Amino acid sequence: MASSDDTQGKRVAVIGGGLVGALNACFLAKRNFQVDVYEAREDIRVAKFTHGRSINLALSYRGRQALKAIGLEDQIVSKGVPMRARMIHSLSGKKSEIPYGNKSQYILSISREKLNKDLLTAVESYPSAKVHFGHKLLKCRPEEGAVTVLGPDKVPRDVTYDLIVGCDGAYSTVRAHLMKKPRFDYSQQYIPHGYMELTIPPKNGEYAMEPNYLHIWPRNAFMMIALPNMDKSFTCTLFMSFEDFEKLPTSDDVLDFFQKNFPDAIPLMGEQALIRNFFLLPAQAMISVKCSPFHLKSHCVLMGDAAHAIVPFFGQGMNAGFEDCLVFDELMDKFNNDLSVCLPEFSRFRIPDDHAISDLSMYNYIEMRAHVNSRWFLFQRLLDKLLHAIMPSTFIPLYTMVAFTRIRYHEAVLRWHWQKKVINKGLFVLGSLTAIGSAYLLLHHLSPRPLGFLRRQAWTGTTGYWNRCTGVFWQVPWSH
Amino acid sequence: MASSDDTQGKRVAVIGGGLVGALNACFLAKRNFQVDVYEAREDIRVAKFTHGRSINLALSYRGRQALKAIGLEDQIVSKGVPMRARMIHSLSGKKSEIPYGNKSQYILSISREKLNKDLLTAVESYPSAKVHFGHKLLKCRPEEGAVTVLGPDKVPRDVTYDLIVGCDGAYSTVRAHLMKKPRFDYSQQYIPHGYMELTIPPKNGEYAMEPNYLHIWPRNAFMMIALPNMDKSFTCTLFMSFEDFEKLPTSDDVLDFFQKNFPDAIPLMGEQALIRNFFLLPAQAMISVKCSPFHLKSHCVLMGDAAHAIVPFFGQGMNAGFEDCLVFDELMDKFNNDLSVCLPEFSRFRIPDDHAISDLSMYNYIEMRAHVNSRWFLFQRLLDKLLHAIMPSTFIPLYTMVAFTRIRYHEAVLRWHWQKKVINKGLFVLGSLTAIGSAYLLLHHLSPRPLGFLRRQAWTGTTGYWNRCTGVFWQVPWSH
Repeated sequence: MASSDDTQGKRVAVIGGGLVGALNACFLAKRNFQVDVYEAREDIRVAKFTHGRSINLALSYRGRQALKAIGLEDQIVSKGVPMRARMIHSLSGKKSEIPYGNKSQYILSISREKLNKDLLTAVESYPSAKVHFGHKLLKCRPEEGAVTVLGPDKVPRDVTYDLIVGCDGAYSTVRAHLMKKPRFDYSQQYIPHGYMELTIPPKNGEYAMEPNYLHIWPRNAFMMIALPNMDKSFTCTLFMSFEDFEKLPTSDDVLDFFQKNFPDAIPLMGEQALIRNFFLLPAQAMISVKCSPFHLKSHCVLMGDAAHAIVPFFGQGMNAGFEDCLVFDELMDKFNNDLSVCLPEFSRFRIPDDHAISDLSMYNYIEMRAHVNSRWFLFQRLLDKLLHAIMPSTFIPLYTMVAFTRIRYHEAVLRWHWQKKVINKGLFVLGSLTAIGSAYLLLHHLSPRPLGFLRRQAWTGTTGYWNRCTGVFWQVPWSH
Repeated sequence: MASSDDTQGKRVAVIGGGLVGALNACFLAKRNFQVDVYEAREDIRVAKFTHGRSINLALSYRGRQALKAIGLEDQIVSKGVPMRARMIHSLSGKKSEIPYGNKSQYILSISREKLNKDLLTAVESYPSAKVHFGHKLLKCRPEEGAVTVLGPDKVPRDVTYDLIVGCDGAYSTVRAHLMKKPRFDYSQQYIPHGYMELTIPPKNGEYAMEPNYLHIWPRNAFMMIALPNMDKSFTCTLFMSFEDFEKLPTSDDVLDFFQKNFPDAIPLMGEQALIRNFFLLPAQAMISVKCSPFHLKSHCVLMGDAAHAIVPFFGQGMNAGFEDCLVFDELMDKFNNDLSVCLPEFSRFRIPDDHAISDLSMYNYIEMRAHVNSRWFLFQRLLDKLLHAIMPSTFIPLYTMVAFTRIRYHEAVLRWHWQKKVINKGLFVLGSLTAIGSAYLLLHHLSPRPLGFLRRQAWTGTTGYWNRCTGVFWQVPWSH
């Protein structure tokens, strides 16, 4: 463990007091940095809560490990609702569950608002940390650690720090300044789908559906999900292309649409409430942001959505952001708080992982709304479970690697591809052996000669067609 | 042809007086718009020329067609040096040429500075157009056509236009404002290579190498090219990774490097001049920018590098930008100057093409420095030539489609892929027939039986190995 003497008196500006900013401030204050958090909004613990971002989130292993490192895991977990499986709602109203992992594994439905409040209170428990609410970052010179902030007094103030940590989200101002520096790669991509939040209220003071599930209504081109809240309501999110949202301008259109696609949800939501919530806010856009590097020299680094906003379909946005903080903390240990080593190392080490979870989330955007409904998907999950049971350390389902381990995201992707290949080959060999066995039995039945004859027979033209077919068939798995 | 009455009195701000901005101003002024061009630099026709951007460019068919539409083609072409072929310089000093097209086809080496000056003079020949030099765009509200510009008097001035045309290059300020609007996709990527310009001066008042060629020294990981100038010098550009540039900190390192990799260029450049030019400026970065859409509502549109900065390896950067102007002009004709139709239509129609030439340029980044040297490349060009001669309208080499036609870039890519597939199949069939023919002749020589026997023989195991091999071999082209 590194001595923290060399951080004493060093000053860090954390831009953004959202989930990742607040968590990061805890990590840095714990390491004896003097931390100023600048948050543009008012203190959400006193201000009236306003809609805008999604209301609940799925906390899994990576996020929990980061919370554990600053001693907050138990407190946060106690305020979450465990979800042990997906609950698939078919169009006919039939429900079927697909577990996330083994019996002891679950993800947690957590309120974004409560979590953020708890994290801000945790920041303020460190004497060396201060949160400046209502302070907006006007501009920065990231290579020098200089920021200009505008507080409630409306007088721009210049402050210089040893380190600027940009945790200011998908539309990061810090990142916008890095973008102007030479050789900074960047991409932002909006997906054609938007999202809209709806509610299933408690029914007679109890959950209106099974609580310990992430409910999914997959409908191919669009889908709805529902996560349980502590107050026994569910927050539903409808994901649908903006084009399709525009096809529902009136209350009648919305009701028709729900009747046709989510008939079981209408009585749970209530017709009036559904209509009211549907027209409360327009559908929100979803952006996927990638950049490289995450740092500039030894004075500025990006984490969380500022570094890698991802689409929400793997439930890893917050977890990846929290793991950023944990990985950085681990690097600070390893390299004795030397920022000039830790920052480039953070970019080098973390970018492949954050890009991998970004790609996986985009992949799941299709899987969740379309494949999850198919028998093939169910068969694959069953196979995953079986193979994991037989070879627990060799074969780990993708979802398990992502949600219940800290296997690096990019390694999880590599293992996943490798496992798929092995399964395909395995199934192929199994299929071939079955075919050969059947043929042998068939021939054996017709004339009881030894296998050696079959081989010769196969090569002489009598079963030539089958023989040549096999030669071609062997090629198939390799050309995929 | 649409009447231009409906443009009378309408005002357009063209941001940027570089090549595309100036050309666009001509197109718009010709269409009777009131055009203000804002250019941050001083008038290059009076200011001293400063280094920075590449000195010469390759003008090909698309760019020429755009110049023709505003009556400038002949004037510009007369100031260019035709390049009819690539001249490949091998390490041993051997030179070999690879023509760009047929005998009458060539691209033109053009001075960026002269071309820009001519275009600015052309703009000023329209009474309804004015170029405001030394005017910087501070900010804009693209959805309203409002710009704030800062002139030499240092007083910000707000002006509102019917249309803002962003032609302000790869680091466009107009685009930076569009990026903040909802659902604007964007990516910027720096390639690992940088470029550096060097010079081969005239020798005894004449070109020191064959003038009508684009000279290439392909060296796999890096390369040098040289384009002829009207003053009988050549401008050389060395493309190399920044990592490799950093390995040459001293004059001796540079000379050693040139001795080892470009020995024939040293006497042409002169040792002293080579060293002087090498250390004049650091290597410059190259960025590839993509975005979508190109427009915002009916008040703002991007063209040229502002919309799609591409790497320079297909020589199409300027040509694509010029064709943007021409395509927009054609749409204005088609849709009677209705901006609310033309702007979305420009995005819809043009983005696939500009993205295609961006991808092709990135592809050529490898082809030019690595493949161009191989026998396989030469064989393919020969095959291209042969097939084009036999089927001139069916089979058109990629380079010809890009440089000598106005086939839409994305269609050129589709045709190219199709043609490659057809060639591969053709070669495969040819190869197979040759193999079968050879086998037949061989067998026929050994025992003069008819072909029918061979077929039966092949299926019965005597030539079974060969037979099964063929079965596998057939798969190969499909799995590529």
